[in-house]
Amino acid sequence: MRKILEHAMGEARKEIAFGETASYIPELGQVDKNQLGVCIYTSDGKKENIGDTDIRFTIQSISKVITLAVALERCGFYKVFEKVGMEPSGDAFNSLVKLDLSSNYPYNPMINSGAIAIASYLTPIISFKKMLEITRKLCMDEQITLNADVYLSEMSHISRNKAIAYLLESKGIIPGGSVQESLDFYVRMCSLNVTAESLANFGLVLAQGGIHPKTGEKLLDKEIVRVVKTIMLTCGMYDGSGEFAVHVGIPSKSGVGGGILSVVDKKMGIGIFGPALDGKGNSIAGRYILKSLSKELNLHMFA
Amino acid sequence: MRKILEHAMGEARKEIAFGETASYIPELGQVDKNQLGVCIYTSDGKKENIGDTDIRFTIQSISKVITLAVALERCGFYKVFEKVGMEPSGDAFNSLVKLDLSSNYPYNPMINSGAIAIASYLTPIISFKKMLEITRKLCMDEQITLNADVYLSEMSHISRNKAIAYLLESKGIIPGGSVQESLDFYVRMCSLNVTAESLANFGLVLAQGGIHPKTGEKLLDKEIVRVVKTIMLTCGMYDGSGEFAVHVGIPSKSGVGGGILSVVDKKMGIGIFGPALDGKGNSIAGRYILKSLSKELNLHMFA
Amino acid sequence: MRKILEHAMGEARKEIAFGETASYIPELGQVDKNQLGVCIYTSDGKKENIGDTDIRFTIQSISKVITLAVALERCGFYKVFEKVGMEPSGDAFNSLVKLDLSSNYPYNPMINSGAIAIASYLTPIISFKKMLEITRKLCMDEQITLNADVYLSEMSHISRNKAIAYLLESKGIIPGGSVQESLDFYVRMCSLNVTAESLANFGLVLAQGGIHPKTGEKLLDKEIVRVVKTIMLTCGMYDGSGEFAVHVGIPSKSGVGGGILSVVDKKMGIGIFGPALDGKGNSIAGRYILKSLSKELNLHMFA
Amino acid sequence: MRKILEHAMGEARKEIAFGETASYIPELGQVDKNQLGVCIYTSDGKKENIGDTDIRFTIQSISKVITLAVALERCGFYKVFEKVGMEPSGDAFNSLVKLDLSSNYPYNPMINSGAIAIASYLTPIISFKKMLEITRKLCMDEQITLNADVYLSEMSHISRNKAIAYLLESKGIIPGGSVQESLDFYVRMCSLNVTAESLANFGLVLAQGGIHPKTGEKLLDKEIVRVVKTIMLTCGMYDGSGEFAVHVGIPSKSGVGGGILSVVDKKMGIGIFGPALDGKGNSIAGRYILKSLSKELNLHMFA
Repeated sequence: MRKILEHAMGEARKEIAFGETASYIPELGQVDKNQLGVCIYTSDGKKENIGDTDIRFTIQSISKVITLAVALERCGFYKVFEKVGMEPSGDAFNSLVKLDLSSNYPYNPMINSGAIAIASYLTPIISFKKMLEITRKLCMDEQITLNADVYLSEMSHISRNKAIAYLLESKGIIPGGSVQESLDFYVRMCSLNVTAESLANFGLVLAQGGIHPKTGEKLLDKEIVRVVKTIMLTCGMYDGSGEFAVHVGIPSKSGVGGGILSVVDKKMGIGIFGPALDGKGNSIAGRYILKSLSKELNLHMFA
Repeated sequence: MRKILEHAMGEARKEIAFGETASYIPELGQVDKNQLGVCIYTSDGKKENIGDTDIRFTIQSISKVITLAVALERCGFYKVFEKVGMEPSGDAFNSLVKLDLSSNYPYNPMINSGAIAIASYLTPIISFKKMLEITRKLCMDEQITLNADVYLSEMSHISRNKAIAYLLESKGIIPGGSVQESLDFYVRMCSLNVTAESLANFGLVLAQGGIHPKTGEKLLDKEIVRVVKTIMLTCGMYDGSGEFAVHVGIPSKSGVGGGILSVVDKKMGIGIFGPALDGKGNSIAGRYILKSLSKELNLHMFA
Repeated sequence: MRKILEHAMGEARKEIAFGETASYIPELGQVDKNQLGVCIYTSDGKKENIGDTDIRFTIQSISKVITLAVALERCGFYKVFEKVGMEPSGDAFNSLVKLDLSSNYPYNPMINSGAIAIASYLTPIISFKKMLEITRKLCMDEQITLNADVYLSEMSHISRNKAIAYLLESKGIIPGGSVQESLDFYVRMCSLNVTAESLANFGLVLAQGGIHPKTGEKLLDKEIVRVVKTIMLTCGMYDGSGEFAVHVGIPSKSGVGGGILSVVDKKMGIGIFGPALDGKGNSIAGRYILKSLSKELNLHMFA
Repeated sequence: MRKILEHAMGEARKEIAFGETASYIPELGQVDKNQLGVCIYTSDGKKENIGDTDIRFTIQSISKVITLAVALERCGFYKVFEKVGMEPSGDAFNSLVKLDLSSNYPYNPMINSGAIAIASYLTPIISFKKMLEITRKLCMDEQITLNADVYLSEMSHISRNKAIAYLLESKGIIPGGSVQESLDFYVRMCSLNVTAESLANFGLVLAQGGIHPKTGEKLLDKEIVRVVKTIMLTCGMYDGSGEFAVHVGIPSKSGVGGGILSVVDKKMGIGIFGPALDGKGNSIAGRYILKSLSKELNLHMFA
């Protein structure tokens, strides 16, 4: 496997030239786009780390997976999906159109509007400190902290998300007066510093239905994990989710920090760090590597 | 003329049953919807007041006409229309779709997004106190004041306009950090207490190309007045502007407070107060009266 | 006036370089884009012809004005506007979006969907031969004929209009089975060969409320002419109508053949031929000339 | 399993009252909505038939799966997906908006626009007769024939699909002149008469990667089957696909004739006939049964 992975990474590096780091906040733009790291953690307890797997980067949208899982646990399925849908939107992650046009609810929890709505359900019942603790546990990584620079930078470039949040408020999807707190919670979760290895760890927890691979502790409910994996599959790679499902067929969630969390059901967790992004906001090298691994190791869900 | 007007008002009263006062803020909803007043002020100096022409109501969107005129004067045509268009949108007044979808500028200064943008250009250079003074002068009405109840009520139901304003900020249409101040300015202007007579006075000023009908003082530049009247004609009656132009053909601007400001070019100003609104937000009795007057008195611009 | 016009045309010629002839059908693309002609016909019986005012070109969308007028006369106001609106759309002339999205009727008779709907109301009750006769009379030009090359070329590039027509059929806006005939009628009307002078003649008829300037014959009902002029003003220059109303303020209708029909109410008809188009499909030199004339001769409706 | 299935069907019958047969063509509307049949065919060769599994109904949109598979085989992956996407659209199956608005390609092969495009690629290279033969083979059902009544009825209510097809033609997504033939091909495929058992048979072929369960013959390429199953999962249940994936997690395709084809990977094919539809066009009882089976038999792809 190491050999296959190394080969895939070699090829993937050639793609980096065609990608760019995220530009919408300065901190993300300054990252060295040539970094690349992949960690694979299999259910038989083996772990492969290649490249920059210990470099910290912000989790960004991958935090939506954690927030969704916690919300399902604390608020219940009905509350979470009362005003947030489960449908891929076919639009970019920060689109307002569908939300406004159809007077409807956010399409799913993986786009900003859905994630902000879910943040508003969580803020009254769970502290950010507790969320950090949960994240560390799920990722088996006690070093995860808030990246204050990114947090502050995002908070000062938040106009569009504010627009989304106030639109949600005006439609009664989030409670009146909850915008500020929800956005703060949302941005804090996006600003957590993880590594490719943290993501691989979390991935294996999901692959095993919520069970800690070493201690056997039940970290998440099996039903919740199933919901989360399904939504990762249909909505996890922005508006490229459908094509990714065809070519790769592994439930994954990407973030504009360059991370990808992938879950090969029952078999392995994969964490990737590659900050050069494609036009849809997915790690360009990461996507390439996952396609290669899926093919070479027969990891497609319908392989 | 008085007879024609009285007859039209009699018929118009029958329409009131089919309309409703504005419901989006409580203060507007509590108004007695059966009130009706029409004031006509002609260029030969005659003034007809029939019905509730001295009852105060909030100017609401009609203030967009004043704000536009002042912005054209203080900022210049180029600055005002650099990022705000002059096209009817074909959409409801508070739509976000066009704004987001086409990554474009607000369609025109008569919809909320355009008016908020223009407010952001004015706040750094003119105080609300000064705007109030100008409004009093244009309406020849020193009694115009801020309706504090409506102002506070609107400020506490402002989520949708906040969404619009932050979207404008995110697109660079309004300066960073100007949202709060611009919205405050915008809502204050909407909350000014006028009467049907104030509007008739202002209407005659516009009909006469900016000249005070009594003193002969030049209150507004002739070119600016021409722009304002044209935009009232094409965009002044929300998404019913086109039909209104066909049937009535008088540049007008309505507000959800129940007011309509109408300008029969060179001939007269008309002010109406009738708080029962039709589905598009226009005074239902007011629209009826203007249609009657246009027909009976031959006031259509292409009559 | 001749001097002012000559100066305006001189300046306008400089704009031609920035425009292009219509490209969607080959025949229109082959026209020499440097041609320019303006004819002004005033209510005192004087006529100014400068430049290429006797060159024939296809009337294209300007025919929508004739079709609308005839439909109002033959079918009545109610029938015409039962399923076609009077609102500017804010979208490009051949847009399907609004039509589909809102399950609504065509926005107005000046966009393709509205004009095709109106064609379907006329085909059962009036022949193309009769329409040609009416057009000749309104334009005081017996030489108007069908340009067979353009007609055939348009009929073989009609996919998008077919899409519009079948969508209209599926929504019950046009009768079942009427698509082919309506499109044929629509394209024939677009393919009529006129001159700048024909348009000026027609313009003066409209300026005089439907009266033939020489014979005094009533060619069109006064009420109908008023409706037509208003819709030309709000919707006649594609999605640049609002800006044109502000800057020029003369009811006008343009066609992608390079023609513009303009109506200075009560005063004059103006016909322009200038096949270099701007990005919205309006004659680029024609627009410039009308702006100049409006300013120099004080022709704005609210001047 | 039979017991679980019987129980699920009993419960599902209660849902039928809340559904309606398809109304857009008369023939579909006349079907008895209380019919219900389920056939399950497992990879160990067992087959369960309960209820109306031998009643013939038209395959409708389920034919899109067959057409896609054949197109992938005959035209290749690149050609099929050159101008048709793989993304869920988040819109209704017959939407024109996305197609027009973004000047883009059809979102995926499971919506009408995508399926019509694919039909246009197939018509020049394969006859309907051959398609019928392939369908019979894939469904192991020699009795499949064209339902002439439904075919004719659909061809006479085809305005909207014609609109879609001409829009595709105007955008160069389908070849010029191919509209009629493509629509005829498309409607013929929709009008094939199948049974719940035919669908179960086809489902097992897909579950086994394209291998005939009895003869072992390779009917479809494994790679193609993987693509097809993935697209069924993300796009197969109209704009309810995302929710269905969460709750059921079985690649499925429904048709407005009341059929559902479901593929439990490697394990079984399920065919359902239940013509009472929910608001999105899916068999209301069928959906209920699949949800029950998924839960009781642990059939979710991430169970």
